[in-house]
Parts: sequence; C-alpha cells; structure tokens
Amino acid sequence: MIKAGIIGSTGYAGQEIVRLLLGHEDVEIKWYGSQSYINKKYYQVFGNVFQLIENICEADDIIKLADEVDVIFMATPQGFCASVITEEILSKVKVIDLSADFRIKDVATYEEWYEIKHKSSRFIEEAVYGLCEINRKAIKDARLVANPGCYPTCSFLSIYPLAKEGVIDMNTLIIDAKSGTSGAGRGAKINNLYCEVNENIKAYGVANHRHTPEIEEQLSYVSNSPVILNFTPHLVPMNRGILVTAYASLNKVYSYEEIKAIYNKYYNEEYFVRVLDQDVTPETRWVEGSNFVDVNFKIDKRTGRIIMMGAMDNLVKGAAGQAVQNMNLMFGFEESKGLKQVPMFP
Amino acid sequence: MIKAGIIGSTGYAGQEIVRLLLGHEDVEIKWYGSQSYINKKYYQVFGNVFQLIENICEADDIIKLADEVDVIFMATPQGFCASVITEEILSKVKVIDLSADFRIKDVATYEEWYEIKHKSSRFIEEAVYGLCEINRKAIKDARLVANPGCYPTCSFLSIYPLAKEGVIDMNTLIIDAKSGTSGAGRGAKINNLYCEVNENIKAYGVANHRHTPEIEEQLSYVSNSPVILNFTPHLVPMNRGILVTAYASLNKVYSYEEIKAIYNKYYNEEYFVRVLDQDVTPETRWVEGSNFVDVNFKIDKRTGRIIMMGAMDNLVKGAAGQAVQNMNLMFGFEESKGLKQVPMFP
Amino acid sequence: MIKAGIIGSTGYAGQEIVRLLLGHEDVEIKWYGSQSYINKKYYQVFGNVFQLIENICEADDIIKLADEVDVIFMATPQGFCASVITEEILSKVKVIDLSADFRIKDVATYEEWYEIKHKSSRFIEEAVYGLCEINRKAIKDARLVANPGCYPTCSFLSIYPLAKEGVIDMNTLIIDAKSGTSGAGRGAKINNLYCEVNENIKAYGVANHRHTPEIEEQLSYVSNSPVILNFTPHLVPMNRGILVTAYASLNKVYSYEEIKAIYNKYYNEEYFVRVLDQDVTPETRWVEGSNFVDVNFKIDKRTGRIIMMGAMDNLVKGAAGQAVQNMNLMFGFEESKGLKQVPMFP
Amino acid sequence: MIKAGIIGSTGYAGQEIVRLLLGHEDVEIKWYGSQSYINKKYYQVFGNVFQLIENICEADDIIKLADEVDVIFMATPQGFCASVITEEILSKVKVIDLSADFRIKDVATYEEWYEIKHKSSRFIEEAVYGLCEINRKAIKDARLVANPGCYPTCSFLSIYPLAKEGVIDMNTLIIDAKSGTSGAGRGAKINNLYCEVNENIKAYGVANHRHTPEIEEQLSYVSNSPVILNFTPHLVPMNRGILVTAYASLNKVYSYEEIKAIYNKYYNEEYFVRVLDQDVTPETRWVEGSNFVDVNFKIDKRTGRIIMMGAMDNLVKGAAGQAVQNMNLMFGFEESKGLKQVPMFP
Repeated sequence: MIKAGIIGSTGYAGQEIVRLLLGHEDVEIKWYGSQSYINKKYYQVFGNVFQLIENICEADDIIKLADEVDVIFMATPQGFCASVITEEILSKVKVIDLSADFRIKDVATYEEWYEIKHKSSRFIEEAVYGLCEINRKAIKDARLVANPGCYPTCSFLSIYPLAKEGVIDMNTLIIDAKSGTSGAGRGAKINNLYCEVNENIKAYGVANHRHTPEIEEQLSYVSNSPVILNFTPHLVPMNRGILVTAYASLNKVYSYEEIKAIYNKYYNEEYFVRVLDQDVTPETRWVEGSNFVDVNFKIDKRTGRIIMMGAMDNLVKGAAGQAVQNMNLMFGFEESKGLKQVPMFP
Repeated sequence: MIKAGIIGSTGYAGQEIVRLLLGHEDVEIKWYGSQSYINKKYYQVFGNVFQLIENICEADDIIKLADEVDVIFMATPQGFCASVITEEILSKVKVIDLSADFRIKDVATYEEWYEIKHKSSRFIEEAVYGLCEINRKAIKDARLVANPGCYPTCSFLSIYPLAKEGVIDMNTLIIDAKSGTSGAGRGAKINNLYCEVNENIKAYGVANHRHTPEIEEQLSYVSNSPVILNFTPHLVPMNRGILVTAYASLNKVYSYEEIKAIYNKYYNEEYFVRVLDQDVTPETRWVEGSNFVDVNFKIDKRTGRIIMMGAMDNLVKGAAGQAVQNMNLMFGFEESKGLKQVPMFP
Repeated sequence: MIKAGIIGSTGYAGQEIVRLLLGHEDVEIKWYGSQSYINKKYYQVFGNVFQLIENICEADDIIKLADEVDVIFMATPQGFCASVITEEILSKVKVIDLSADFRIKDVATYEEWYEIKHKSSRFIEEAVYGLCEINRKAIKDARLVANPGCYPTCSFLSIYPLAKEGVIDMNTLIIDAKSGTSGAGRGAKINNLYCEVNENIKAYGVANHRHTPEIEEQLSYVSNSPVILNFTPHLVPMNRGILVTAYASLNKVYSYEEIKAIYNKYYNEEYFVRVLDQDVTPETRWVEGSNFVDVNFKIDKRTGRIIMMGAMDNLVKGAAGQAVQNMNLMFGFEESKGLKQVPMFP
Repeated sequence: MIKAGIIGSTGYAGQEIVRLLLGHEDVEIKWYGSQSYINKKYYQVFGNVFQLIENICEADDIIKLADEVDVIFMATPQGFCASVITEEILSKVKVIDLSADFRIKDVATYEEWYEIKHKSSRFIEEAVYGLCEINRKAIKDARLVANPGCYPTCSFLSIYPLAKEGVIDMNTLIIDAKSGTSGAGRGAKINNLYCEVNENIKAYGVANHRHTPEIEEQLSYVSNSPVILNFTPHLVPMNRGILVTAYASLNKVYSYEEIKAIYNKYYNEEYFVRVLDQDVTPETRWVEGSNFVDVNFKIDKRTGRIIMMGAMDNLVKGAAGQAVQNMNLMFGFEESKGLKQVPMFP
C-alpha cells in the first residue's frame, strides 16, 4: 500500500485521479491539495464522494507533502511544477506531473509556445514522457514523469504505427481534433458557461495550440525526422471525450490488410489500445469513463490518403488514467491495476 | 462463481447489467439474450465492450437458459416475464424481473394500469418486491424478485422514513419527478430522437403514469393506510439520472434536527442511501454511474410542508444496480459487491 | 420611430432585447450599456450581430441616456434600478425595469427576500407590474414598468384563470418549476460551467427562492385573499425554456369542459397565451425563441387535484419579449409588434 | 402574393421552410405534404405552430399540387423528385428540390455515389445549382433549382474565393466538417436517439460521404480543373449548425491582408456571407436560426497551409433558408426577403 498526494485535486483532472485511486487497492490518498478550497471538506466540492472521503482540502505545501507520501500527482497549471520541484523532493517521492512543464525536451520550444520562463530546466532531461505504450521501460525507473497532454496522447496513438513504419508522408500530416469541455478546465470563465458551450462548435488555438510541439516532438522520435504538422482542436458540447481525425498521404499504395497488420503489430499486446474492426469508426461514447483508446483508419484510394482516427476519454487516458497507469509502472503494480473500468454508456 | 443469463441484454438496462457484472468477481455472464440482434456479436451493438466480450446475441429461450445458468435477469417489456415464467423454471434458477410484472400484488390494479392481461398471477404472491433496503430478508430467500421501477425506487426512498414514522399527511403527498432519457428505453421512436429531446422539458403520463400504483402500494405498506397521490414524471435532456421532488404537509411542527434524526434512523446503516448535509440539495451528477441514492429534505415553515428530495442514477439503483444488489442478497454475496463504483463526474 | 437605450445589454436578457428590437420597425437602439465591456464593439461580445451593429458598449450613465432616448430598458442586477432612478429621469423617459426592484408593493417583503435596502421606495406605488395580459390598461399610461420575473410570468399565467374564478383551493397550491440555464445569468460562476450543468438536474432555492413573494402577491390580487405557496425551481441542462407544473386541490368536482371554458374565457383573445388541446402537455421546445406561453391542465379524479402546466421561453416572454410587449403598450404600438416570431424548432 | 406547396413538410428541413415562409409577406403556404401524417393537423406534428396553422397534412400529389401553387419545395428523400418530375409540372410551377437529384451534372457520378438509378436525367442539364451567391443570375430564370446540400454550401463558401483565385493547391484540399444532429433527419433510427448522440462525437461516411462529389464538382467549376478531395463529416451533439475546417497548401507565401482582400472581393457585397475579423473563428452559435454563413481563415506559416473555416445553420442556409433565397430570386423578390432573422443566442 503506497500513499499518494494530489496537488490540484479540485480541478477536473485532479478529481478524476481521486475517483480512480479510490478504486485502486494499493493506494491510499493522504493529501487533497487545493489552493481554492483550503480547509473545506473535499466532498463539499465534489458531492460524488460524500461519505467516501472525509478529508479537507489542504494548501499546496509540496515540501511537507514529500515527507508524507510516496507519490505526488501534480494536476496544476503550466509552470507550477517547474517552480516548486527540487532535487530534495525527487529524492523522497516520485512525481507525476500532469502539466506540460516536463513534456518538451527543448526548453526554447517550451518557452516559446507556453510563454513562460522554465524554472527547472535541469530536470527536463531526466523527466520521462509518460506515454506508457511507448516509454514503458523508462517509466518504471523514473523519478519524474511528464504525463502527456490529452490531445497528444490521442493523436500520437492514432498515428504512431504508421509514423514508425514509414507508411505515411509526415509532411502531409494534418490533425483535426475535437474535445469535450472538461478539457477546458474548471476555471470560472464566461466562455465555458453552459449557455456559451451548449449548441455550439468552434475551432480554437488554430495554428498555435500549445499541444502542437508536443505532438510533433513525439512523432519526430518515432519517424526519425523532424515533423511539422497542422493541429486544430475544436470545442464540442459534451463533458468528456476526445476524437482525433488525422489525414496523411500514403507513401505508396497499401491494402487494408497491410495497414491493419501494422496497427496489430503495435497494439495487439496493448490492453488499453483497441484497433476496431474494419469500417467501424471510433466514437467517444464507447470509451467514456475508461482508459481505452479506440483507433482505426480508412484508406481513400481516390486521394491516396489515409484517415487515422482515435477516440479516448480526455480525463482518463488523456489525464488521470494515464497518470495512474504511470504510477502502476513506477511502483511495480500491474499496469492496468485500478484501470479496468468498463466504459459507461449511455 | 455463479452463471448469469440476461434476457433483453441490448436495452439500456440490460447493457448496464452487463457493465456491472463484468466488474463482479463472482459472476460470469453466459447468455446475452436479444431478439433484435440474434447472432450479432454483442460488442457490435455496444462498442464499449469491444475486446471484453466475444459472445453473440442469442434468442430468448428461457427454458434452455434455465438449464445453463443460476440466475436470469429479465430486462424485457411488460408482460414478457409473466408470459414465460413457470414453476419448472423457478425450480431451476432464480429470476430477477426488471419489468413491472410482479411488482404489484393486486392483479386488477396491474391489469388496469398496464392494460395487459397478467399471464402468471399465481406467482405474484411469491414474488418479492426487490427494494433491498426494505425487503432485505425476504429477498435472500426469494426465487423470483420483482426489481422495482426507477421512479418508485427514488420516490419511495426519499419519502419512506417520514411515511413510516407518521410524520407527514399522506393525503397531501405530491411527487414531481424528472428523468434522463435513458429511462425512455432504446426503441426507435421519433419522440426520443436527439433533436426532439434536446433543448426541451415536458411532463408526460400526467395523472396516469404506470409507476403510480407501485409507489402507492409500497407507501401504503409502510404507512399502514391506503395512499393515493399525485405523481408527475418529466423528461429531461440528459442521459442518466432521476430527481424526485416530493411535497407533503407535516402532521405537526418539526425541527430540522427531529426530521434529520428520523432519516438517520433508517439510513445510517444503509451504504447506498446517503442523507446529505443540511441545505444541500440532491443532484443527479453526484450519483451518476453509481448505486447511490442521495436524499434530503427542507422544512417550509411558511406553508407547513416538507419538501423531500432524492437523486439517483436510473440505470443503476433504478434498474441494473438494484438488480445486482438483489442478486447479491439472493446468493449470499456481500450486498454491495460489484456495486461500489464511485460516481463519475463530470 | 422611438429611440431606446439598454442598460445591461451584455447579459442574456439584455442581448435578447437587442435581438428583438433589431426586428422591430419602430425602434432604434441608441445605447448599448455595459459596465463590463466599455468601449468594446458590441458585436465582439455577441458575434451573432456582426455586421448588424457597429456600436460600442457604453458606461451606465442613465442621466445622459435619459436625454437621448425615449425608453430605457434596465436589464441590471437587483437594486441597481432603484439606486439610480429619479423623478427627473422619469419625467424624460419611460423606464422598463427587468429587475425585481419595483415588482413587489410591500417594501418590507422586498427587503426581506432580496436582502437589499430599497433605495427608491417612493416609486413603488407608481410602478406598474408589467404582466401585459393582466395590467394592459395601466401599462399604457405608465412611466415605470416593473417587468415580471420569468418564473412568476409562467407560474401566474398557468394558474391565473383558476385562481381568479375560485376553482382551486389556494392553500394547497404547489409550484414545481424547471428552467434552462440562461436564467442563471451570464456571470462567470463555477456552478454554471458547462460541465457542472450538463448531465445534471437539481432543485435550488428550495422554500426560499426570491420569486416566491412575487408569485404570491399577484395571485393574491386575483384570488382576493392572501396566498402562501410552495415554489421550487430546478436547473435543467438546456439553454432556454421554463416549464411550470403546479398542483392544487379543486374546490369541487369539475369536468374537463368546465375548466377548459374558464381558460378559454381568459385567454381566447390573448395572442401570446395558447391553451393547448386536451391531453397535450406544454413543452418548452414549442415556444423557443417566441413570446408564446403554452398552458394546459389535467384533472386527477383520484386525488381531486388539478395539475396546471405552462411552458415559455424564459428570455422572451420571461424577460425581453415581455419588456418589448410592455414597450409596445406604453408607446401605442400594436402589442405584438416585433414579437410574432414563430418558435424555432429544433 | 404567391402560393407555395411543400412536399415533405414534416421533416426537419420541411418544417423549417414552413417557419420561414410564415414570416414571408409575399408567400402563402397552400399545401403541407406529408406521407407519414396524412389528415393529421400540421400543428399536431409540430406544436410550435399551434394557432398559427390550421391545415392538415396532405398526400404527395404533385400533379394536383402543380395546379394549385406557384412554387413547390421538395424536401424529400433522394430519388423522389426525379421520380415524379415532368415537363408538364415544370410548365406550370417552379420547383425547388432540396434533395440531391439535380445537383450533380454527371448522371454516372450521381448513380454511383447515391446508388439510385436517376429517373429524370433529361432535366439535369436544365436544373440550376441553387447556390445563390454563385449562380444568382441563372437562378432568376430557372424552372428547376437544385438546392445545394448543407455540407457543400458551407464547404464551398469557405473555400470559394481562394479556389477561384488560384491561391491554394487544390490537390491538397481536405475538408473536416462537423454537423448538428438535425442534419441526420427525422427518421426513427436508434443511432439518432438522444442517448446515442448525446455525449458522443464520431466521424461517419469516411471517404465515401455522398456530399463529396457535389463539393468537388462545384470547386472544379471555379478552379477550372478537376478537384478530388477528402471530406469527413462528424456528428456533434447539438441540434443545429455546421462547422467546416478546411486545409490546403498555399501556392505561394501570402500575407493576411492579401488573403483578406480576396475574401472581401467576393463577399463584400454578399449580405449572407460574413467574413469575420482577424483571428475570430466561426462558431455555430453565432449563426443559429439565421441564413448567415460566417467564414474566416488562418495562415500557418510553419506548414505553408491555410486553414479555412465556415459556420452556418444547416437547416437555414444549409437547406430551408437557401431554398427561400432561391425562391426570392426566381420570383423577383428582394433576395433577403423573409431571411433577415437575427441569429438567436443562446
């Protein structure tokens, strides 16, 4: 039984870590960090855990926390983790950072896209990018894991086998993504009010969304060449879910079976990545509440392109679930422990 | 390890039984009954269980099924269970019927409200009304359990302590209920299309909804007098959730603490019924995906009435979850086994 | 052609006045008041009027405004209108106040329920309660109209004929109301975020909602006796719409035809109040975007009660539409001018 | 005053024509055609027009109808119009067909994508593609107008200026579109039930949606070369609205101002096409209920691509509104007559 602390436990990702850990037999949550609700009972913020959690929300004292727990989840805004992390902390606890602070290896790229000065660049190299299906081995030994972004996780896993095998022309890659509104966070902003989001769809961050360099970097590694792509996210009137529709030109003519075999090669052994049957398109409803990513593809002979698609719950595999998956790896638990929820429908 | 069969496994309640039993360590599903999808893979109907279930949908052969399983869940339309149940079947398997066929003890009342001739009235007396918090003991020995309706469960549990203790004037009882759309079933009806339900609220079944006599009967038992009440359900644009707002005149002046003590008396030991803190109103979002019922009340001194409120997931405690809770009791498992899901938010 | 100014034009009610007045041939909007967006182009706040409105948002200078326009709409928080209104202003312009400041004749009641000191009680008697169907004549001559609340409008019009004719026992009256989220306003509050409202229903303001005394006062006038009732509003995941379900005991046995005749007596000549056919329940989708109120009733012989129902668009008949209807009366325009939009479905 | 008949008046597009024509001073609807609701009062199908329309639904007798009206709107399934249209009918009335029957000039292409034998190919050449902004002149003299599809309208208008001016490489064009659920029609299908659509997003018709050849044909005309592209539609949980996000490589480096000037050149005089300010992305909420199409673009210097975006109400400019716009042109009315509704928000 390990002990966990959550900084930022009253955001959507933070409370989802709570939900998942409550069902995890080997973890006990010792610290519900929340600057906004200090001393308030946690269940008064999230009524779903009434009679399940009696703890109060505590201030973000990572120094103290490092002495009390084995793992810290940082579900905090960009820049926070980098501003508080120290060698001393990392010597005491494992840290899983859900922000972008340690996802991008090139500091200049981080600082340009996030418009923040990085305050702990010395830990960037050590930090492991926590996409479990790719970096499983490194994660097991990591002290500091950079939990991937929601869009990058879904985008990368949809494209990865074809990028890795050189099937597609990476210069033609375009990612059109759609997300439920929990991805926009729990801040009190007019733009995220019910009446502003409901009955609406819009693109945002067009050509400058901050998840772009993260996707590019990871795809560069697996395709062995610099990748520059278009990434356009859209806000959809639903609570959870990310859908990725990606387009690229095939480097030559491929049959359905050939591409299918490539996806199978990479994902047959992956419990959380499901390659759907032919002509079945991923839908967010089929993964809601679970750590699954459903992927599939369609070859368009007319244009010589392939359409790669992926669906995922942005709060689970896109945030809290992947964080727990990383924790499982880091502590030697079964990788899927506490993460085998059947997707809930409807 | 017991074996279960589900007749009507491709309705919303049926597939929710599947979701819950997949997470139940002591049950194996052997039969996915579905007249509409015979020989189709179950996961082709519900993509959430892709790679989790390989079974195909099978015809509704209850005779054959009775030889193969220990318990049958009947998630079927009114009248079906009564038309197929026999002494032979009941001698072989336990049956949990999610329809209304065995909920109402007076056949004439059933036939009047449901406008169906009851084909197995000989089993009505034997059948146990499966509201676990009330009939726990009888359920343990039952062969045939009538799983309560969604509205009756939420209505009854919101009112029960006050009805039982004679606190309210039962002649003044009015129940105004609101349900998510999964309660309307998975039939292909224009009225349940997305564009017809979204951005709309309406009452239906006003003064003649078929759950009325079921609520009245159960409240009559606990208040020891015939109860006639108004029950008005409303359709709300959301997938899951039932909210009950009930009104009655208090028989005398009561303090908050006195009423609270009464609720506590009945529910302190009940894991699935949560009596909320003062002035916290039940909300469906805090119970979604779980077997909890959240109840609370508000005394209105100006009018001498009390407002009793309850929130519940109609597919869990209102259908599949309560069915599994009944199964647990019938087979001697821990009552909450497989039902401790933390409500999922948002 | 008259000139209009709108204070609070960037709230949901304010922008709806803009939408309606843009389609009104006899009115020109001269002033888009908004403290929050001073000097910003109005269309930058509400993209729907791009290329239709070039004006900027202006500070709330009601003194200056009074010199420039013929009518001022105050779509402002409680207390604001009372804090700025003066005899001089009223001598220059007509004022339609969408807040509650002048709706309640008894200052003590206002101050108790709203917990605000009333700063202009000298105008309360003069102010006319702007429920056009009831006070049409007085409105025509008014300088200051108190535009009714959304819940009171829908509640009152659903009940009015039966209260007026003494058909129901006013001591038994219970109003259970449901509203779309635009009724909660455009403030940046966590509780009104998309993910907090979507997939949820809850009661709020139970036994103490501030629209209660307004409904009671108006019903007292028409029933000629003090009315105390229960009013419970609920928040529904939809943008627009209010549904009222009201319950009362009938004073004697009535036939459907008798009650229908009473509704017809009061509403046959009312363009905006539609008494539906027998057994058709009001639905908010059928009035969306329009100034209609759809009402109907159902007699429950079993309980001796009648269920009165009403559906309305909270932003139109419940706010902006009724304000324009009042303006039409005050300036001698046809009462329905600019208000004949066909409800938009779906 | 002209007389209109609507075949298929009880679908979503048909009822939207009704809504718009009720507000059109020069048109009287004489015929509410509906095979599904023959002899039922029209308002019993669509409660929004209660007390506004007393007509009953009539069978689809286009021969009889041709003698009684001046214009027929065919809001019918693919193949119906082609199966009933004759020279005699066209000699008597003008026909606006909202199906795809006469949109595609090449019969083989139509028959391949729609998998229907075309029964009136002799009228294809005569039929005018009713995209008013492009074919205004020809529409004025047409007897038979093929009203464009919803996706093609929004896609084409988003891309048209750049295709026409040779700014983009048409071989790189990818259109990722998102639609509200009214676009899926009013048929009673399980896939369109509330609980199946809500909280979900999915792609459909990937690489084979039938609107593809229509978009390609129209873009071929304006770019003077055959266009083959990728078009991927998605189903979004909202009632109305289409959003198009299109990607193409720029043929050379362009500044924002240069591209803006090109859009302005084509749309400055177009009332219904609004080119948004720099960096403002189109959102469906800002056009809901109106005939506007909001377009904008973003140049991505990193990839050398341009992202073209458009938002529109699929039932108005994408169906009924454009049909009325066509009617206005055909009968010499002001083109925007009856179509100046301000978009309704929220």
